[in-house]
Amino acid sequence: MAWNTNLRGRLPITCLILQVIMVVLFGVFVRYDIQADAHWWLEKKRKNISSDVENEFYYRYPSFQDVHAMVFVGFGFLMTFLQRYGFSAVGFNFLLAAFGIQWALLMQGWFHYFEEGHIVLSVENIIQADFCVASSCVAFGAVLGKVSPMQLLIMTFFQVTLFAVNEFILLNLIEAKDAGGSMTIHTFGAYFGLTVTWILYRKNLEQSKQRQSSVYHSDLFAMIGTLFLWIYWPSFNSASSFHGDAQHRAALNTYLSLAASVLTTVAVSSIIHKKGKLDMPFLESRLRIQDTCGIHNLHGIPGIIGGIVGAVTAAYSSPDVYGEPGIVHSFGFGGYKSDWTKRMQGKSQIFGLLLSLAMALVGGIIVGFILKLPVWGQAADENCFEDSVYWEVHEEVNAVYIPENLVHKHSTLASTMPVVLSTASTSIIPPVPPTPPVSLVTPVPSAALVH
Amino acid sequence: MAWNTNLRGRLPITCLILQVIMVVLFGVFVRYDIQADAHWWLEKKRKNISSDVENEFYYRYPSFQDVHAMVFVGFGFLMTFLQRYGFSAVGFNFLLAAFGIQWALLMQGWFHYFEEGHIVLSVENIIQADFCVASSCVAFGAVLGKVSPMQLLIMTFFQVTLFAVNEFILLNLIEAKDAGGSMTIHTFGAYFGLTVTWILYRKNLEQSKQRQSSVYHSDLFAMIGTLFLWIYWPSFNSASSFHGDAQHRAALNTYLSLAASVLTTVAVSSIIHKKGKLDMPFLESRLRIQDTCGIHNLHGIPGIIGGIVGAVTAAYSSPDVYGEPGIVHSFGFGGYKSDWTKRMQGKSQIFGLLLSLAMALVGGIIVGFILKLPVWGQAADENCFEDSVYWEVHEEVNAVYIPENLVHKHSTLASTMPVVLSTASTSIIPPVPPTPPVSLVTPVPSAALVH
Amino acid sequence: MAWNTNLRGRLPITCLILQVIMVVLFGVFVRYDIQADAHWWLEKKRKNISSDVENEFYYRYPSFQDVHAMVFVGFGFLMTFLQRYGFSAVGFNFLLAAFGIQWALLMQGWFHYFEEGHIVLSVENIIQADFCVASSCVAFGAVLGKVSPMQLLIMTFFQVTLFAVNEFILLNLIEAKDAGGSMTIHTFGAYFGLTVTWILYRKNLEQSKQRQSSVYHSDLFAMIGTLFLWIYWPSFNSASSFHGDAQHRAALNTYLSLAASVLTTVAVSSIIHKKGKLDMPFLESRLRIQDTCGIHNLHGIPGIIGGIVGAVTAAYSSPDVYGEPGIVHSFGFGGYKSDWTKRMQGKSQIFGLLLSLAMALVGGIIVGFILKLPVWGQAADENCFEDSVYWEVHEEVNAVYIPENLVHKHSTLASTMPVVLSTASTSIIPPVPPTPPVSLVTPVPSAALVH
Repeated sequence: MAWNTNLRGRLPITCLILQVIMVVLFGVFVRYDIQADAHWWLEKKRKNISSDVENEFYYRYPSFQDVHAMVFVGFGFLMTFLQRYGFSAVGFNFLLAAFGIQWALLMQGWFHYFEEGHIVLSVENIIQADFCVASSCVAFGAVLGKVSPMQLLIMTFFQVTLFAVNEFILLNLIEAKDAGGSMTIHTFGAYFGLTVTWILYRKNLEQSKQRQSSVYHSDLFAMIGTLFLWIYWPSFNSASSFHGDAQHRAALNTYLSLAASVLTTVAVSSIIHKKGKLDMPFLESRLRIQDTCGIHNLHGIPGIIGGIVGAVTAAYSSPDVYGEPGIVHSFGFGGYKSDWTKRMQGKSQIFGLLLSLAMALVGGIIVGFILKLPVWGQAADENCFEDSVYWEVHEEVNAVYIPENLVHKHSTLASTMPVVLSTASTSIIPPVPPTPPVSLVTPVPSAALVH
Repeated sequence: MAWNTNLRGRLPITCLILQVIMVVLFGVFVRYDIQADAHWWLEKKRKNISSDVENEFYYRYPSFQDVHAMVFVGFGFLMTFLQRYGFSAVGFNFLLAAFGIQWALLMQGWFHYFEEGHIVLSVENIIQADFCVASSCVAFGAVLGKVSPMQLLIMTFFQVTLFAVNEFILLNLIEAKDAGGSMTIHTFGAYFGLTVTWILYRKNLEQSKQRQSSVYHSDLFAMIGTLFLWIYWPSFNSASSFHGDAQHRAALNTYLSLAASVLTTVAVSSIIHKKGKLDMPFLESRLRIQDTCGIHNLHGIPGIIGGIVGAVTAAYSSPDVYGEPGIVHSFGFGGYKSDWTKRMQGKSQIFGLLLSLAMALVGGIIVGFILKLPVWGQAADENCFEDSVYWEVHEEVNAVYIPENLVHKHSTLASTMPVVLSTASTSIIPPVPPTPPVSLVTPVPSAALVH
Repeated sequence: MAWNTNLRGRLPITCLILQVIMVVLFGVFVRYDIQADAHWWLEKKRKNISSDVENEFYYRYPSFQDVHAMVFVGFGFLMTFLQRYGFSAVGFNFLLAAFGIQWALLMQGWFHYFEEGHIVLSVENIIQADFCVASSCVAFGAVLGKVSPMQLLIMTFFQVTLFAVNEFILLNLIEAKDAGGSMTIHTFGAYFGLTVTWILYRKNLEQSKQRQSSVYHSDLFAMIGTLFLWIYWPSFNSASSFHGDAQHRAALNTYLSLAASVLTTVAVSSIIHKKGKLDMPFLESRLRIQDTCGIHNLHGIPGIIGGIVGAVTAAYSSPDVYGEPGIVHSFGFGGYKSDWTKRMQGKSQIFGLLLSLAMALVGGIIVGFILKLPVWGQAADENCFEDSVYWEVHEEVNAVYIPENLVHKHSTLASTMPVVLSTASTSIIPPVPPTPPVSLVTPVPSAALVH
């Protein structure tokens, strides 16, 4: 099927329309929270706050910047492992996240930060928006290489919408807790992405098989992403915790879990390789649903495990560890929840997990069918995983010198000059014109060059 | 014109002399600010400060580190997009910035932090020095690939000097405000760099044309720079704001503007490509002044826009938004400025913008002519944009195996062995000796190898 | 000597046993410090702490994250300069550091944070653990390319143990001060690593000589590591300083020293190159002990200089600068140390330095002989510095097109089709099967392809 991948008309219009809508909605709805407003000095007086350092900014901004690095550098470079898809991995992740955080600020704002007709904006909102978009980055991993930037924008629009609805039901209606986002970010993000890629199933994807693997340098770029995700994960899990010991504890727990996971991962990677070698990203999905980045094992399963463990921990949380006031504080067992038991909290967590899965599946099916429409500029099966479909790519051209004696009698050129052959990165896409190769030696007749 | 690019004598002497001067001047002039001095406990007592967290360090250090990452990682890698200029992009940026921050600490110190015969040093100074040097990194973008490290040191010396003078006149004499550095950093930096590159115009630069484009991997490295500049920009714009709501607000505003800019940029990039593809760095300058990194569009125009918008915003700033006390506080409308109106502030902003442009042009012309002297080890036109002029480069050598049957009868070697050809990255510079190529197969007579 | 490098049985078992031991020991020994415990609200009441921002977390967490980035991104990528050892550089550094921080938390915990039968854990411990592991990363630099991941785990186990003992003797028994870790991190780490590599001396290492150099892209990856180490060094040196002015001062001093070091380094690099060119990592060791990363010059010598300068500074520290109370505070000249003089402190520093050297030498010899046992899966001399020994590597395969007229009469294939040759990164290891090369042009008979 030869779809038209020329986005010249469609992509700019989509981007501009979306951005104009964002600007208008921000103008109408978004205002500064009092902590970011020029009237904060009044609030400080009223609340008898003695120091500027009590501004929420100083509690959360360093963690925010770490999360921000994870979303844009971490997820972006993580997905550069494909040999010919680095621009798209980083660039499309950039595009969808930059759109997604704006839409998330609005959606989450209407649900959680709406006061007197306006969304009030502080450092807390931008952390939450980055969290929301992290689930879109997860889902991007499933469809990586097989969708157009148009499709990614549409997908992000719906996913962010569903994320905000799911999060609202979980946190505000079911009253579940989801620190670290096991349910709302990882489970929802992963199964939404997996459902979409399942609906978009491509029968002849093996035609672009040779570009589905990594190469040496692409894996090194992917390590940049891996490491930035890994080192900043303590900030991810603690960025929105309660002030003080809770934020402190969340960071420590994550630090320890991450360290422990590395040895286990190395062990498993070495066991499953027939010669005991290590393999970068080795968590390939066994599901036959074309999950490019293996997000089922990377986010789906861990998200579910996190959700279940969270439920169990809640149901059996010990007053010895947290103290009765600690448990009441953590689960909000006050006011209308004063008759809640820990077991009820555990059930609520399980409901939250099931709801996240249901939202992901139903939402993913609907969005999948929308994305199946042949109008979004998606590439043909044989052109998947290839940057040059949507990007201007400058090929790396090397010169190969073939010595005179080898060429001599066979060249149709009446020439005894050495021949220079060009080598370029492999590509199926024919219209990419190689830039003129350059001789290692001396100028050669251009007719001897390969184009 | 064949200049001598051997820097063995000149570069070390220049570096060492500059560094010795710095050390002496620091010894004579620089002292710790009370907040970084071992006597701070006295100050705490005197001012009745109850907590160590009130030390300026905790308000600004996290933002400082982000800015520091932008200057060295962000700008450095941003300029690695040229196929054969990665070492120079990162390394020369490193060199000029490391020298520049020292000189900036002195220059800005004399103008802004001079107390009782000494420059007092705190985290605030090092943020300001990083800001100042960011303008040198911007200017470096214009001359990228065409100047020697000697020239960059000279250029940085003058630019930092002019920056400090310009900043002093703007902030202290004209009383303009320049949060984010639209005028002092972006406008001044860009037009200074553009003027220098215009004076250094190279007629035959198309001789090194083939190295002026990017290749696949070089663009991916440039994305590292792009992303680190992008994610930390909220810190850049808020690092030196007033404590509390002002710093909070500056970070939020920048976050939103950055997100909005991505969709717009994608739209424009796709519109101007004839097949609607995206292109990395696409903001090529239309000016015929050899602006390598396109800084006219990247910093010049945005700086001017920022300056004008700042003036308009100042002139029409609303008491509804800031409150009268807020406006008085922000613009310093107290003391001898108590009769200033917002309109006067707006005019002052415009003067500041014009002054920045004038300083950039006049300074750029003078510095340009100094740099034109043929003593700085600059490269010939055909050797521009090439790392191996100033760096020891280890070539990547690949082996190409040509099967026996192809070689058989034509090799002058009495041999039926397969021939292995070497491929290396293209380079015009002849003296780079390729490291010995290695066979993929079995040892071959070295005479069959191509050097 | 052909050792068996298949780690399938050994590596997973080692990793899993170590990790299980860690989990058990953490369960038995490690508890939250009161600042990270859910009972902190009680402590706040008791100590009359008015604000959550007084939690140690907010004083230290931003610096911790910078140090964390240095250990994993900085050291990891610094060592990617070898052309075929990027996976191992980043991956093995990741593995040893992730194991090392767990073991360091226990070892340092028993010595320094042991209260009522438990190790109490806060952000301070994880900074100290990262510091300890930094010394393992330094030592890794000496043996880079010549040891198996098994050997690295064993080496890290012993090194962390010795580090903790050495640190305890230095800080608690000898009462030396070691801000920045000149003695405990750099001197100990470097000479431990150098002694190990000296014991592991490989006579025929020149057989893998061609892989001991860098190539263009590998040096650019190494620049990522270099820059992240450089920009965050102020955090490294200040992360564990006293609150307030001391932390502030440590960051400023490091910032200035770093800036000054760049010009000096460029000068020296240019002087020692015969054409005055710059060279990335140029600090090659002159010691004939196979110090891959040149850590003798990078950490050993600077560590010793730092130790000596520290001793001199302590002995001659002036009350003019620190005030008498400052000196008493810094050196802890109270209680049982009330009769200490500055000169005694200086002597104590020198003892600390000598002890670190002694521990490194004796420990390194013992560990070196343990690592010499032929059971750890180490590679043969000719296979050193090669990722594919322990990693699944996907080769980058390019296609070379040889035009028809050149091939025509000589191909044994009765074919007039163009021939496509594959080029791959060089590798000695034969069993790496190249992935099928892809034609730039049209499908060709696979018999014409080179494997």
